[in-house]
Amino acid sequence: MLSNDVLDVAEDLAERVAREAGVVIREAFGKKKKATVTKTSDADLVTETDQECERIIVRKIKETFPRHKYIGEEEVSATGVMPALTDEPTWMIDPVDGTTNFVHSFPFVCVSIGLCIGKRPVLGVVYNPILDELFKAREGRGATLNGVHIAVSGTSELKKAVFATEIGTKRDQGTIDSTYGRVSALTQASRAVRMCGSCACNMTSVACGRLDGFYEFGFGGPWDVAAAACIVREAGGQVLDPTGIAFDVMSRRVLSASNRGLGGEMARILNEVSPSPSDPPVPLQN
Amino acid sequence: MLSNDVLDVAEDLAERVAREAGVVIREAFGKKKKATVTKTSDADLVTETDQECERIIVRKIKETFPRHKYIGEEEVSATGVMPALTDEPTWMIDPVDGTTNFVHSFPFVCVSIGLCIGKRPVLGVVYNPILDELFKAREGRGATLNGVHIAVSGTSELKKAVFATEIGTKRDQGTIDSTYGRVSALTQASRAVRMCGSCACNMTSVACGRLDGFYEFGFGGPWDVAAAACIVREAGGQVLDPTGIAFDVMSRRVLSASNRGLGGEMARILNEVSPSPSDPPVPLQN
Repeated sequence: MLSNDVLDVAEDLAERVAREAGVVIREAFGKKKKATVTKTSDADLVTETDQECERIIVRKIKETFPRHKYIGEEEVSATGVMPALTDEPTWMIDPVDGTTNFVHSFPFVCVSIGLCIGKRPVLGVVYNPILDELFKAREGRGATLNGVHIAVSGTSELKKAVFATEIGTKRDQGTIDSTYGRVSALTQASRAVRMCGSCACNMTSVACGRLDGFYEFGFGGPWDVAAAACIVREAGGQVLDPTGIAFDVMSRRVLSASNRGLGGEMARILNEVSPSPSDPPVPLQN
Repeated sequence: MLSNDVLDVAEDLAERVAREAGVVIREAFGKKKKATVTKTSDADLVTETDQECERIIVRKIKETFPRHKYIGEEEVSATGVMPALTDEPTWMIDPVDGTTNFVHSFPFVCVSIGLCIGKRPVLGVVYNPILDELFKAREGRGATLNGVHIAVSGTSELKKAVFATEIGTKRDQGTIDSTYGRVSALTQASRAVRMCGSCACNMTSVACGRLDGFYEFGFGGPWDVAAAACIVREAGGQVLDPTGIAFDVMSRRVLSASNRGLGGEMARILNEVSPSPSDPPVPLQN
């Protein structure tokens, strides 16, 4: 574990580089962007802004913490290699979460910077430069939005809950059917469903009580959830695997909820729906 | 038809009362709200803010235009009576579009004030007081966002389109199945889907190019679409019935799209999905 002094430096650094990347995103936001599709899906976009922001963030982190590891969306996407997560301090970086929103100028876009130690997210910054909302948390110290402490909602019944999910970038029939099977089952039991196009923004919305729950199967990688998982937990919420077992930051499966009761009810309903062949595997439990 | 001078007064009035209601919404936004469910659905909410804002708006409109008609969501909801639409000048008022978002402090909330003459929306103001975005349009004069002219996106292929819809407040199996049948069919052919919880905000997002298309069946009433229909058309977009026939502001069915090609493709796919017994009827065409 790093000392508190080192974590103080890490926390300041994460906020500073998130704001620097935010300036780049905000300047490009209203303009026409050139997006290319990734190798894996026509619905998965990448822009020069994603790549430029990741370079800025990684360079600054390497300058300050040259021996830390990092896992960044754009590098993994370019190389096709997902590094194994060790117990060493590892930064998880998504320079633009919600790239499709960014390309279409839809205001749910954020920079997500998390730090894992011992495979646990212990520090997280999620910054939406369009709405100028900076969410931050550090293990044991609570979560804030623009410097003000936040807490999850008190909603514990699914029928009074607004939950969010995303349909991802796969368009084969099996994935579409199981994705909508899950949403449909939860919709019947809940107040409302939202899909706003950013995994990290959805999770920070749970952290500050705008949403009561969120789940997603098969998002891009750990950079989408590492920072926000720390923020949700420090705001008093639950972060689980959607099967109800412990969350694994590498698994590309997440369920977050305002409390254990609601998270359990969501997991129970999600598990009654047939999985898709393209679902990421359930993590092994120790 | 009203003279241009009278329409100038109407336009100024609509903007002024939308901003006044916006102040009330913004003040209540971060606070805990007492919501009650309506007679028709556990998922359909109403708050004191909805009622207070409608009183403010209707009082000011009646002071200036005592002989105009008006159709307001809260009054229709309280009396259970939907007035027939005539050719007379008729104001369509939704004091809080996105009430569930308002109750949960989710930032897609707006005041929607439209004016129909000869059953056509000729003037519209949609104001989101949380994001401080005021959309306005008047027939033949273009559409603006915070005073700057806006236009729909240039997207004409569904596979590059981000569309939005909403699942509404009905939770019976038939409605859920046909609602998700439609979303699922469009998702397969498109880039992404959004559900953000406000019909008027979705339509103004089409008007300014953040979304490429939007459709919904069975929303609350004409107050959800009257203002935004004028804004989408004046921004160069299409507003249709989802079957592809002409839009009828009273029908509780809408499809808006950046252009005719995309709107037609969306309508074709939506019509291949079995309707729900609870779908509002297709309007008769003259």
